[in-house]
Amino acid sequence: MTRSRAGPIGVFDSGVGGLTVLRALRGVIPAENLIYLGDTARLPYGTKSADTVVRYSLQCADALLQRGVRLLVVACNTASASALDPLRRHHPRLPVIGVIEPGAKAAVAASVSQHIAVIGTEGTIGGGAYQTAIHRLNPAAHVTSLACSLFVAMAEEGWTSGPIAESVARRYLEPIFTTADAPDTLVLGCTHFPLLAAAIRAALPPHVAIVDSAATTAAAVLEELGGAAGPHNGTAVDPDAAAISGTVKWLATDGAARFARVGSAFLGETLHAETVEIIDL
Amino acid sequence: MTRSRAGPIGVFDSGVGGLTVLRALRGVIPAENLIYLGDTARLPYGTKSADTVVRYSLQCADALLQRGVRLLVVACNTASASALDPLRRHHPRLPVIGVIEPGAKAAVAASVSQHIAVIGTEGTIGGGAYQTAIHRLNPAAHVTSLACSLFVAMAEEGWTSGPIAESVARRYLEPIFTTADAPDTLVLGCTHFPLLAAAIRAALPPHVAIVDSAATTAAAVLEELGGAAGPHNGTAVDPDAAAISGTVKWLATDGAARFARVGSAFLGETLHAETVEIIDL
Repeated sequence: MTRSRAGPIGVFDSGVGGLTVLRALRGVIPAENLIYLGDTARLPYGTKSADTVVRYSLQCADALLQRGVRLLVVACNTASASALDPLRRHHPRLPVIGVIEPGAKAAVAASVSQHIAVIGTEGTIGGGAYQTAIHRLNPAAHVTSLACSLFVAMAEEGWTSGPIAESVARRYLEPIFTTADAPDTLVLGCTHFPLLAAAIRAALPPHVAIVDSAATTAAAVLEELGGAAGPHNGTAVDPDAAAISGTVKWLATDGAARFARVGSAFLGETLHAETVEIIDL
Repeated sequence: MTRSRAGPIGVFDSGVGGLTVLRALRGVIPAENLIYLGDTARLPYGTKSADTVVRYSLQCADALLQRGVRLLVVACNTASASALDPLRRHHPRLPVIGVIEPGAKAAVAASVSQHIAVIGTEGTIGGGAYQTAIHRLNPAAHVTSLACSLFVAMAEEGWTSGPIAESVARRYLEPIFTTADAPDTLVLGCTHFPLLAAAIRAALPPHVAIVDSAATTAAAVLEELGGAAGPHNGTAVDPDAAAISGTVKWLATDGAARFARVGSAFLGETLHAETVEIIDL
C-alpha cells in the first residue's frame, strides 16, 4: 500500500489546543501525513450544549473524511466527552480516538495510591468525563478534580514559564498536594496544559506523576496504527523534528492570523498564516 | 408619573462582565428599577461576526423591551462596537447607551498629554472601537492599545488582588508606562477590569488617571435620565448600598448557578441562583 492510498490522520479541536496533541503525534508517527482542523469560528465548545458539540464534531469529521483521513483524533476534551459514540456510529469503519480515555488509562496505570487529581477547564471538570473514565477503569479510585481556568489564558498568552506561571500553578495545586492524603498522580486534562508542564512540575512534590493527555493520546494512536497497514513500522521513534517526513495540512474555520500566531507556541515551531486554509463547515 | 409607568432601565451583556456597569448604575441611580440580561448561553460575543452580534443584541433588546424598559444600556464592549446603530434604528424612541463612547469621552477629558492607553480583550482591542471613538473626539490623540486577556480569567476566577494580580498587571502595563513618552491616562476598556482596579493602580505611576468605563457609562445614563421624567431627581447620590431602593430583575440564557457564583464578585454582593430567571432568546 502506498502512503497516499493509506490516507492521512485527521485531528480536530475547537481551536489551537489540539496542536499539543498534533505535536505529540509527530513525535511518535513522524512519517504520517496529518490534517489538523481548528473550528476557530465556533470556539469554545466547552460552553455549548452536548447536542451542538455532537453536530459540530460530525461536521468536522465530514470535512476531514472528504480529505481522505483514515483515522480520526478528537483532540478536544469537550468533543471527546460528548461526541465519540456518535462519531463511531456515523463512521463505523473509521477508528476514532479521543483525549480522555488514554489519559484516564495512563493515570490508573501510574498511580500507586489510586488517588488521582485531574485538572482541566471549568467545562471539562464540571462535565465529569475524566472522573467517569477513571471510575470505569477502577471504581475504587479516589479522584480529586479542579478547574484551572487561568492556565488556558496563560497558554494562549504565551506566559508558560517564569515566576507568574509558577505562582499561579502553586496557587491552584498546593492546596491539593499538601494534604496528608494527597494524590500521587496529576492528569493534565486540557490540551492547553502541556505548555505549562514545567511550571506545574515545579508546584508539585517530586514523587507525583504527571499524565499528559496529549502524549497518552498520541501513544493510543500509535497503538491503533500498530496493527494496520501504513507507512510507519509501528514503533515509537525519536521525536526529533529532523526525523519528521510527513506533511501537515492546516485547516481552520476563522482567523488564520491568530491561529498561526497562537498556534506556533502550541506546536513548538513557527506556523505561517498563509499556509492555513479557511474552510466553512 | 408613577415609578411603574416610567419603566425600568435594561442592561445587557454576553455574560457577567456587565454587572460592573450595573453596580455603578446602582450607585448613581439607586431608586431606579433595573433588569439585567446576561446572554450566557451564547458568550463570548467577542469571537463572533458583527452580523451575529447585531442579531443577538436585537434579541436581547427585544426581551428587555417586552419587560417594559425605557432606556437600554449595552454593557458589552463587543455589542457596543457593532450594535448601537442597528439598535437605535430599530428602536428610534429608546435611548441606547453603550460602554465605549462614555469611556472615550472621559479619557479625552482626563488626559493632559492626549497620549491615552486602552486595555481590553483581544476582540475589543483588535476591533479598534475605542481607538476610533477617541480619534473621533480628538484626531490628534495618540492611542496605545493592549489586549490583557489574563485579566478576564483572573476576574472570573476571583483572583483580583494580591501578588499574582499585581505581577500580571505589572507585566502587562510596565512596558507601556515606563517609556519616556508614556500615556497619562488608562482606559479600562473591558467590563471585567474594574474588579482588578487596585492591582492595576499598583502597577501604574501615581499621576496616571484611570478611566473606568463602567463608572463613565453609569454617569452617561444619569445624564440621559437627568432631563427625563422618572423616579430620581437627576443628581448623583452616595453609592452606599443602604440608599438603594430600586429592585433588580436577573435574567440569563443559561447556567443560573455559574451566573450567580461568578456574578457575585462582579456585583459586590451575593447573588442567589434561584433569583436568576433563565430565558430563551
